[in-house]
Amino acid sequence: MQAIVSIIMGSTSDYPVMEKAAKFLNDMQVPFEINALSAHRTPTEVEQFAQEAEGRGIRIIIAGAGMAAALPGVIAASTSLPVIGVPIKGMLDGLDAMLSIIQMPPGIPVATVGVNGAQNAAILAAQMLALSDETLAARLKEFKVSLKQKIVRANEELASIQFDYKTN
Amino acid sequence: MQAIVSIIMGSTSDYPVMEKAAKFLNDMQVPFEINALSAHRTPTEVEQFAQEAEGRGIRIIIAGAGMAAALPGVIAASTSLPVIGVPIKGMLDGLDAMLSIIQMPPGIPVATVGVNGAQNAAILAAQMLALSDETLAARLKEFKVSLKQKIVRANEELASIQFDYKTN
Amino acid sequence: MQAIVSIIMGSTSDYPVMEKAAKFLNDMQVPFEINALSAHRTPTEVEQFAQEAEGRGIRIIIAGAGMAAALPGVIAASTSLPVIGVPIKGMLDGLDAMLSIIQMPPGIPVATVGVNGAQNAAILAAQMLALSDETLAARLKEFKVSLKQKIVRANEELASIQFDYKTN
Amino acid sequence: MQAIVSIIMGSTSDYPVMEKAAKFLNDMQVPFEINALSAHRTPTEVEQFAQEAEGRGIRIIIAGAGMAAALPGVIAASTSLPVIGVPIKGMLDGLDAMLSIIQMPPGIPVATVGVNGAQNAAILAAQMLALSDETLAARLKEFKVSLKQKIVRANEELASIQFDYKTN
Amino acid sequence: MQAIVSIIMGSTSDYPVMEKAAKFLNDMQVPFEINALSAHRTPTEVEQFAQEAEGRGIRIIIAGAGMAAALPGVIAASTSLPVIGVPIKGMLDGLDAMLSIIQMPPGIPVATVGVNGAQNAAILAAQMLALSDETLAARLKEFKVSLKQKIVRANEELASIQFDYKTN
Amino acid sequence: MQAIVSIIMGSTSDYPVMEKAAKFLNDMQVPFEINALSAHRTPTEVEQFAQEAEGRGIRIIIAGAGMAAALPGVIAASTSLPVIGVPIKGMLDGLDAMLSIIQMPPGIPVATVGVNGAQNAAILAAQMLALSDETLAARLKEFKVSLKQKIVRANEELASIQFDYKTN
Amino acid sequence: MQAIVSIIMGSTSDYPVMEKAAKFLNDMQVPFEINALSAHRTPTEVEQFAQEAEGRGIRIIIAGAGMAAALPGVIAASTSLPVIGVPIKGMLDGLDAMLSIIQMPPGIPVATVGVNGAQNAAILAAQMLALSDETLAARLKEFKVSLKQKIVRANEELASIQFDYKTN
Amino acid sequence: MQAIVSIIMGSTSDYPVMEKAAKFLNDMQVPFEINALSAHRTPTEVEQFAQEAEGRGIRIIIAGAGMAAALPGVIAASTSLPVIGVPIKGMLDGLDAMLSIIQMPPGIPVATVGVNGAQNAAILAAQMLALSDETLAARLKEFKVSLKQKIVRANEELASIQFDYKTN
Repeated sequence: MQAIVSIIMGSTSDYPVMEKAAKFLNDMQVPFEINALSAHRTPTEVEQFAQEAEGRGIRIIIAGAGMAAALPGVIAASTSLPVIGVPIKGMLDGLDAMLSIIQMPPGIPVATVGVNGAQNAAILAAQMLALSDETLAARLKEFKVSLKQKIVRANEELASIQFDYKTN
Repeated sequence: MQAIVSIIMGSTSDYPVMEKAAKFLNDMQVPFEINALSAHRTPTEVEQFAQEAEGRGIRIIIAGAGMAAALPGVIAASTSLPVIGVPIKGMLDGLDAMLSIIQMPPGIPVATVGVNGAQNAAILAAQMLALSDETLAARLKEFKVSLKQKIVRANEELASIQFDYKTN
Repeated sequence: MQAIVSIIMGSTSDYPVMEKAAKFLNDMQVPFEINALSAHRTPTEVEQFAQEAEGRGIRIIIAGAGMAAALPGVIAASTSLPVIGVPIKGMLDGLDAMLSIIQMPPGIPVATVGVNGAQNAAILAAQMLALSDETLAARLKEFKVSLKQKIVRANEELASIQFDYKTN
Repeated sequence: MQAIVSIIMGSTSDYPVMEKAAKFLNDMQVPFEINALSAHRTPTEVEQFAQEAEGRGIRIIIAGAGMAAALPGVIAASTSLPVIGVPIKGMLDGLDAMLSIIQMPPGIPVATVGVNGAQNAAILAAQMLALSDETLAARLKEFKVSLKQKIVRANEELASIQFDYKTN
Repeated sequence: MQAIVSIIMGSTSDYPVMEKAAKFLNDMQVPFEINALSAHRTPTEVEQFAQEAEGRGIRIIIAGAGMAAALPGVIAASTSLPVIGVPIKGMLDGLDAMLSIIQMPPGIPVATVGVNGAQNAAILAAQMLALSDETLAARLKEFKVSLKQKIVRANEELASIQFDYKTN
Repeated sequence: MQAIVSIIMGSTSDYPVMEKAAKFLNDMQVPFEINALSAHRTPTEVEQFAQEAEGRGIRIIIAGAGMAAALPGVIAASTSLPVIGVPIKGMLDGLDAMLSIIQMPPGIPVATVGVNGAQNAAILAAQMLALSDETLAARLKEFKVSLKQKIVRANEELASIQFDYKTN
Repeated sequence: MQAIVSIIMGSTSDYPVMEKAAKFLNDMQVPFEINALSAHRTPTEVEQFAQEAEGRGIRIIIAGAGMAAALPGVIAASTSLPVIGVPIKGMLDGLDAMLSIIQMPPGIPVATVGVNGAQNAAILAAQMLALSDETLAARLKEFKVSLKQKIVRANEELASIQFDYKTN
Repeated sequence: MQAIVSIIMGSTSDYPVMEKAAKFLNDMQVPFEINALSAHRTPTEVEQFAQEAEGRGIRIIIAGAGMAAALPGVIAASTSLPVIGVPIKGMLDGLDAMLSIIQMPPGIPVATVGVNGAQNAAILAAQMLALSDETLAARLKEFKVSLKQKIVRANEELASIQFDYKTN
């Protein structure tokens, strides 16, 4: 099976966060690959990766990085595929990574999600793919319904909490 | 007994914070209800809740949310009742939630309290209700006296600490 | 006519911002008064003001202040009336004033609005008063409708902008 | 021609920023529509818009908003289409809008771009559409080449600056 | 013995921080008193304290507070004595307290020290008193020498660490 | 006349801010001197200045600096006199200077005032001197009364503003 | 003459800032070159530039960039030469660029200077070269003396300002 | 063996961070020394150190400090050697130290690395020395290769993680 989403991270220490992207794509039955490549430690490999991704059949790239998080932007520089950036929480609460990823210059966007938001990055990727994949679109709608059901159940638990002046 | 304050939160994980609002209203004998509804996961329910609250007899809404905390503002959008927002501490020290709640556009205010300030939200609600409820106003004044007494007692403890050059 | 909302500001230099609160209350036909009193320059007057406000018939206090904005909190300390705080933009983009107003200790809330959000403070005040004033409640609903109509009209202007690939 | 990208903004005062998105889509010959709808002033219209967008043939939504920028998240809540958020610079340098848009809860992503990054939002939209539109993909590649050529020409200008110790 | 420095804090939960001020004054043999009074919970007592301090023989006031830390400024408002403010670390890393204390309006200064800097506040107080107390001035100079000696000893420890390429 | 307060600034570009300190000391008839010395450009002179200040009769030092504002701390390092620091607004809204001045290590305090708060620094200096100078103490009390009178007069102006629903 | 310092910037709009680096190197008679290359718009050229710089005789690289300023780090990734980064002020006061440049991962440093600190970057470069160039070292010492003289002259101007209570 | 890099820190509590600089220099076989000297507690020693370093054969100084981190700048003030600054994480996430070190005035640069980036400081020092030391230059290139190999091996581990839809 050909991977169509590529998950890439700057360091394997980012894996506990980026794993949530993998799990979501797996649940959605979207073929994916995972790699660790660093914009600062393996720049040639990153550029080669970015230039070749489209040719290999990759359609969307999810890139997670922390601190001076150049990886998502550097990949976006060398591909026309959509790149989704995940700021990884580090020393400055992840604000350094967020600004390093989101404040891209005109012409080279990175679709940025919240700090450690790897699952949301995968959902975005699935939404993009679903534009031309009705089966996946249907799975995403089921997922959205399940989100709502969780809240509904949570609400039922709240209803059972006892206070004298609480009303139901 | 008809609830007149509605406590709503974006996720049941916010309950340990929002519980302080419930406890204060209970102490003040103000009938209240608690619900978990998410601006992002159950938007239709949130809008329905906001539109129907006044008709059901709710007079004030306390809404707590974290991160991109849209819940208080979205409720304020669909009701003319006063909405009190509680920013819940999350990844960025709660500053993300605070700014998401407080920086409302002209025309649609949310009365925002400090990070995790659910008890203060409940006090504000009681102050608003006390404008037309003398019994509640009296209870609030007693509460204010008790705050002062706590400090007075605390001060007495400080008086008992021994240093050579400390004077009493 | 007896004022029922009191607008207070730390300095007359805050008037261009706080004027929007006065204008909204005027539009809503809510009797109000305006004063400049400083928590740091006229502390005795501020405390006296706060202690006497309720007895004079004031029901809600709107307090605007910049920098180390102690005024709203200091007033809240000496009254049980609801206090609405307006952070005034100054040297640090108003963030100093916002944090000085919103981060109140447990027991003494200030209902804080966004930076320079004086109109929103007045709307909040009107919402609180409308809990026991049906005429005012009706005026607020009209105001809310007018907000929507402005957007609708604005939308119609957008519709008239010409682009080759813009569709209507 | 059926619009496939919908540009939406919280206020027409955001138009000078959001116009760059329209211009880019126009240049790329992507049919689009523009609307002003506010999460806080026209919530019902926003929800209706979000729920009906997919049915009307819209495939991607670009939403710009400032301050407590709830619009992109609220739209994302009611559609499975990809939503791209543009934080509009306002009082706090746009940081309030950025955090309000990007810090979405798990399950409901918004693809966020930099402050005032409307053109980048449009490029992202085009990249997503290009996944199943080879003509558009080709246009995007041309655009990327033109970006590079601008830098190359700029570099030539730098080469002409005279300093005694500057070498070419 | 008459207290000449008054240490005051907004809450006894601040005592573990403020204790360092007491210890330093004790070491310097400066008579002092400690009180807990809250600008927000015991405003009348705070104002009375500030107005009477000079008459009671107090010459310098050290005031510690967290969050919306109004205490130092409110005391400065009602006395001409020098007031030293200590921001106490709380929810936002103490930045909320720092800005609430330091950003005083023209005319009413608070001499602010770093977050949790209670010992430094006491040193400042001793420096002020030493302007007219030669014995205290001499003790402060001894203290300053001891600070230097600590570093010198610390440096000797570093000298003993072994690396192949470390030189002494 | 012997200067007893020394105003020092890192650069003459800071003079428009620091001038307010000179004016206040002049009004209070406190003899002072003004110098520009830079911790980074004239370090030897700064250390010599700090070491000799007390011997020359200086009793308090007011030091203003911007950016990586080392000057106040470096002076405090070489004297036992009280040092008052004034953060000068520069590139990062003065927050860089504020943190560089206020966050001193234990043992070496700098009494810090708000951004550009040179007048407040001079008031603090006068308050310290007034501890042993009754004439100056009386002048400071007059100044404090004048602050209050300004607000009282300002308040009278507000009273004259006409609104239909404004009451007096 | 062979360039030994290479000044590179992400956009020619950065030239007014980066020009100060060129001027300083020119004054110090250090041969240099200037180029505009973007990590995001011309990634291949940037990598080629970084890989070939050492071979071409370049010894130090000064890289200026704004926003998500990846350029300095990306160059550092592909060379062992020292890289000096200059954050260019843009939308968020340059804090975005500063964090994007300075927070490099272990192994790949960028020597970062203050916001818009291009002259300081050039001084750093000259200091590095002066380690093995005594003529340049001598010029740098002269420059340092001139900095001091400017302050001394500025101080003389301050001495001429007249106040009644100012002493000389 | 003559030390050519001098590692200096403001307090021995900074040693666990600064140790990484020592270890890297040791690995690179660069002779170094370690000292603790405080800009605020031992200012004369710091100035003497800075003035004499070059004469003693030191070629680069690495200075680590936290909070109001004046040490790197104060050393840079009294030497023409390159000074590398390491902000040490303390109370405000190290942002206070970073701004105190990096925002140097024109004329006196400090080459600043990320928060707690002591190893990177040592790499920068080695890069500067390698400009005139080919053996060291070769060692640095080996180090750079090893960084890449770590990522390559990490990537191989990622390849072994099993998901149903993960492809290799």
